[in-house]
Amino acid sequence: MIYVAPSTSQRVRAVIFDTFGTLVDWRTDVAAAADEFADAAGVEWDPRSFADAWRAQYQPSMAPIRAGSRGYVTLDTLHRENLDTVLGQLGIAANTFDPKHLDELSSVWRRLRPWADVTEGLDRIRAGYLVGPLSNANTALLVALSRHAGLRWDVVLGSDVFGTYKPERRVYQGAASLLGLEPGEVMLAAAHNDDLAGAAAAGLATAFIARPLEHGPDQQTDLSADGPWDLTADSVTDLASLLGY
Amino acid sequence: MIYVAPSTSQRVRAVIFDTFGTLVDWRTDVAAAADEFADAAGVEWDPRSFADAWRAQYQPSMAPIRAGSRGYVTLDTLHRENLDTVLGQLGIAANTFDPKHLDELSSVWRRLRPWADVTEGLDRIRAGYLVGPLSNANTALLVALSRHAGLRWDVVLGSDVFGTYKPERRVYQGAASLLGLEPGEVMLAAAHNDDLAGAAAAGLATAFIARPLEHGPDQQTDLSADGPWDLTADSVTDLASLLGY
Repeated sequence: MIYVAPSTSQRVRAVIFDTFGTLVDWRTDVAAAADEFADAAGVEWDPRSFADAWRAQYQPSMAPIRAGSRGYVTLDTLHRENLDTVLGQLGIAANTFDPKHLDELSSVWRRLRPWADVTEGLDRIRAGYLVGPLSNANTALLVALSRHAGLRWDVVLGSDVFGTYKPERRVYQGAASLLGLEPGEVMLAAAHNDDLAGAAAAGLATAFIARPLEHGPDQQTDLSADGPWDLTADSVTDLASLLGY
Repeated sequence: MIYVAPSTSQRVRAVIFDTFGTLVDWRTDVAAAADEFADAAGVEWDPRSFADAWRAQYQPSMAPIRAGSRGYVTLDTLHRENLDTVLGQLGIAANTFDPKHLDELSSVWRRLRPWADVTEGLDRIRAGYLVGPLSNANTALLVALSRHAGLRWDVVLGSDVFGTYKPERRVYQGAASLLGLEPGEVMLAAAHNDDLAGAAAAGLATAFIARPLEHGPDQQTDLSADGPWDLTADSVTDLASLLGY
């Protein structure tokens, strides 16, 4: 099947995927790692709140890099810095712990499990389209995560290749350029409306994938598509069907 | 098995591969395409000589980009320009032909077949190491070639990511950086001594893979390792064995 995106009137040839939240369930596995760490270190915290607080630092930590007031550093680096911030919020000095143990905890972002529909869905979409992650993760983090999660890609597009973070326009347009495609021939699939807004502004086709449990049972954001995205799906397998595979 | 490269005294964690000649047999398939084109267009040329002449433009066409006297353009673009050059050498004006047919002929570099040992060898090496192509091809060309040839990668590293061509040092070191590794933790595998010399100068580990038929039965160059490379193999499966997989 040939899928032509209404927003671009172009045939989609590649589908690129946001990763954290869209493909992998970061909250469950980060909470499990935080719980294990707390047990071993003899501290107490609510592991899901800890995971939420860590993730809450994600956007603020990228903001100065997007704005150009800080040079590019990788998401691996930001995750590690943000871990110290979260410990500080809990009134715990980072130097309470062996730095190696904090590094190990921080690397949990490289070992997340995919949502149940992802592996099958990507393989089906790959039968008809080029597929790759387009993530704010750096390439090495994406490679480690993809191996761990068993994701099969044609190409891996990390933020370090572009030197800034989504939703900066040059990330989306740079991805299309590396694929040798026009922006309108590339579809971003994401569980986050702001990411899709960035992609649409850069001329890409868009697909919303609902992940109503990304932030747990009380999630308030991104419960539904809030823009004129080309497709809306409940899962990657659902998206595969909508794309004809 | 843990493989420690003698040249770097570091454990190798990723093996990256030169592509044209090392993994895919460009001469046979380019000659076949040139033969088919000549038949359809009603011209006559020796298809293997045509393929050799086309490939002979490869290094000269990259030289001004390496030197910085020409801005980066992709290998897809150079292949197409070099095709016109080769036609000119034969005394045939490029405008003799429909440009679409020349574009189609030029895209043969995206549809080459791997040497017989490659698919199995890469899958075996991937069991213990990160694997990816590090090629002077652009990403889109590598993605198309890898899908056509059935090559499974963790990451795809095209020259467009680095904005210049091997053997410039920043290509090799940039690849290690994207993989989150030190240069000495990365091994380049290639059938070309000059590529391995560039990798070694950049601090990478090195493996020579002999491809004595790359240029046909009369090949004079790269018949054997001419530097102190860490490993010398007859095939990618042989390299897998030497790396313990």
